[in-house]
Amino acid sequence: MSEPTRILMTEEDIPTHWYNIAADMPNAPLPPLGPDGSPATPEQMSAIFPDPIIEQEMSSQRWIEIPDEVREIYKIWRPTPLVRAVRLEKALGTPAKIFFKYEGVSPAGSHKPNSAVPQAYYNKQAGIKRLTTETGAGQWGSSIAFAGGMFGIDVRVFMVNVSYQQKPFRRSMMQTWGAEVFSSPSNETQTGRAILEKDPENQGSLGIAISEAVEEAAGRADTKYTLGSVLNHVLLHQTVIGQESKKQLEKIGLYPDVVIGPCGGGSSFGGIAFPFLCDQIAGEKRAEKLRCVAVEPASCPTLTKGAYAYDYGDASGFTPLMKMYTLGHDFMPPGIHAGGLRYHGDSPLVSQLYHEKLVEAVAVPQLATFEAGVLFARHEGIIPAPESCHGIRAAIDEALVCKQTGEPKVILFNLTGHGHFDMASYDRYFSGQLENYEYPAEAVAASLAHLPKVG
Amino acid sequence: MSEPTRILMTEEDIPTHWYNIAADMPNAPLPPLGPDGSPATPEQMSAIFPDPIIEQEMSSQRWIEIPDEVREIYKIWRPTPLVRAVRLEKALGTPAKIFFKYEGVSPAGSHKPNSAVPQAYYNKQAGIKRLTTETGAGQWGSSIAFAGGMFGIDVRVFMVNVSYQQKPFRRSMMQTWGAEVFSSPSNETQTGRAILEKDPENQGSLGIAISEAVEEAAGRADTKYTLGSVLNHVLLHQTVIGQESKKQLEKIGLYPDVVIGPCGGGSSFGGIAFPFLCDQIAGEKRAEKLRCVAVEPASCPTLTKGAYAYDYGDASGFTPLMKMYTLGHDFMPPGIHAGGLRYHGDSPLVSQLYHEKLVEAVAVPQLATFEAGVLFARHEGIIPAPESCHGIRAAIDEALVCKQTGEPKVILFNLTGHGHFDMASYDRYFSGQLENYEYPAEAVAASLAHLPKVG
Repeated sequence: MSEPTRILMTEEDIPTHWYNIAADMPNAPLPPLGPDGSPATPEQMSAIFPDPIIEQEMSSQRWIEIPDEVREIYKIWRPTPLVRAVRLEKALGTPAKIFFKYEGVSPAGSHKPNSAVPQAYYNKQAGIKRLTTETGAGQWGSSIAFAGGMFGIDVRVFMVNVSYQQKPFRRSMMQTWGAEVFSSPSNETQTGRAILEKDPENQGSLGIAISEAVEEAAGRADTKYTLGSVLNHVLLHQTVIGQESKKQLEKIGLYPDVVIGPCGGGSSFGGIAFPFLCDQIAGEKRAEKLRCVAVEPASCPTLTKGAYAYDYGDASGFTPLMKMYTLGHDFMPPGIHAGGLRYHGDSPLVSQLYHEKLVEAVAVPQLATFEAGVLFARHEGIIPAPESCHGIRAAIDEALVCKQTGEPKVILFNLTGHGHFDMASYDRYFSGQLENYEYPAEAVAASLAHLPKVG
Repeated sequence: MSEPTRILMTEEDIPTHWYNIAADMPNAPLPPLGPDGSPATPEQMSAIFPDPIIEQEMSSQRWIEIPDEVREIYKIWRPTPLVRAVRLEKALGTPAKIFFKYEGVSPAGSHKPNSAVPQAYYNKQAGIKRLTTETGAGQWGSSIAFAGGMFGIDVRVFMVNVSYQQKPFRRSMMQTWGAEVFSSPSNETQTGRAILEKDPENQGSLGIAISEAVEEAAGRADTKYTLGSVLNHVLLHQTVIGQESKKQLEKIGLYPDVVIGPCGGGSSFGGIAFPFLCDQIAGEKRAEKLRCVAVEPASCPTLTKGAYAYDYGDASGFTPLMKMYTLGHDFMPPGIHAGGLRYHGDSPLVSQLYHEKLVEAVAVPQLATFEAGVLFARHEGIIPAPESCHGIRAAIDEALVCKQTGEPKVILFNLTGHGHFDMASYDRYFSGQLENYEYPAEAVAASLAHLPKVG
């Protein structure tokens, strides 16, 4: 038989350590700031996170061991396949070799459980009985529901009311794994009750849901909060993606020229890119020409049009300030945007690396992402999540450049998840209800005018 | 590391041949009968099937080579993982070893593409430009949409009106792969138009959708019909499941005591069971005590309560007569039944083997299947399709018997698909809207009174 199209590995190949890029960055990561403008302390964070998570969040240790208990659960779907998109290459007529790392094989259908599982584990170790979180479309909520179930820890998910109504299937998925799901604003918290009193029909927002989840965690000793992207420890956990990809490519004697990941909060991009980027930082010959490209929606262009500034992580200003690319914490993505990756900010690690020109970023228009997703599905079979379509679009664009230049580049992208719970967005695409929308510069400027003042 | 929980194989391990049990049955399969009561001829079948499919349908050759072009597409998801359900075993406290073969990793999310791909391939080879089929919930429709897309052959799916309205996501999935999907009854066929003229709001039925798909195929030289279960060639294609399972168990030195598959039309049961059953028929020592168990819903108890008789394959009596276990071709499963496997008859091959006591059958009540599915999801992560929950139920019941007897049996079951498009059924289960329903003996008797008279 010919060269394999799926490069598989066995359980022994699941990484034993997570890779922490903070150890190798040319400049140390800038710290989050507390309400008084000085660096946030572990004590300030311990109201909502357990100690081992805070330690990882602040660690500058290069390799952090993955507990056996976490690797046991990873075995349910890891190592994930690395697949050569041979049919897509042929359809494009490109000399490039396109590979995708398929994270959609996890129970929750995306890369998110890579971090949900260790977060549940460390909370369990710390004697925590309950986890809270917020969820919009439901990707993170279902991942933490799954992970909590695996370790016998209760999970309470605050799901934005409008999603709760419109996406009952993600909700049922969380319930199947044993989580409690509340429409947010809910009667479970003071925040929720106060809002419902004024406005019983309130549709909810991610900002409100975060406030509810944080309020519960801060108010109960047996309860902590979990977050699915942005923070250092989340990106750390996601490096299993890039580490496996590297090993799989090495098995067939290849190294990527371009590594691509969709970028909302930054965990899927960081997860695939950092274990390659460190080769470049270390001056390895094979990584000399490596390019790492973060792909974001043109309607939510954090890296490409935002400011690099200290801003809140949430809409209400409850969190510490983080130095990151941001569109302003009161940024609201337009309703026409169907494709996820809606966060106003970005991972501080990714932001700093982008600011220091170690990684690139590109913003892609909505229709082009769905066009890429459909082309991919028709040739490679898998129907990708709208978020994942952003990475596919960029990979196709790179491959089309190769077609012009004749270069047989090795392109690797993170296929972060399947679209089984996102078919409504495909429906809107097929029926012509989606449009391109470029977030206007004036609107960005207006929202950046509200950035908090620091120092 | 400990014994692997997922037994993986590489592309080289995809079977090179399908296994045809017709070659090894103690008595040759009884032929289908035409309208005049004599065996149906290839010519009669050629109006709706291409020659290579008819040849396979009637073949008694033991091994039939899988074309390279089909194996290339199989590579997208095959070999599928064989997984030891260690957490489930522990939760049950059973000494049994429970293994499941996970077919939900295919693009369409079930075992159905195993047959959809070769069906599309042989039709393409025969110069066919269009395929028609019917679909209820959408499992088969999406599989043939995917397969048709892979070979550049047009696919037209007649989807039962009520499903078309209630399950828009399976419809979008088919459209993503490029298929045309029509609400049935449709304006595309005489059958459909006649029904709509009398009753514009007609909800449709699988019988009507079959008639529309067959009418189109019979009326156009460039168009053929495809079917996703029941027939010999479909079960033949599904034997890749059992062949791979056998090789995977051999890798860890095991052979099953019990092989279990959910059973509606019979293809998922036959697919996993036949490659083991042949060892028993051949008198192999290791297969001496093997039991193959087909699992059906108590609300649609074809094997356990039906008659073994010649009956039509469809509700309207358009197809040849097949000797099979049947509840009568005008059997309608009760509305309360949420779990698929609704066909009134069963594969003639499975039926004959059951009649000759070479395989067993068991009927399980609805609530127990969902209970098993939720237990499975909470321990093994994967949320199973309601059809698949039938197999899980039976596997758990076998494991609980082992708990009593202390026997460390090896139990293998076919986890035919994931439940990502079936969360509405889980919702009904969680909200107490589902009940047990045992199809009453009188109703079976009444519907069996309408069996066609033969000979």
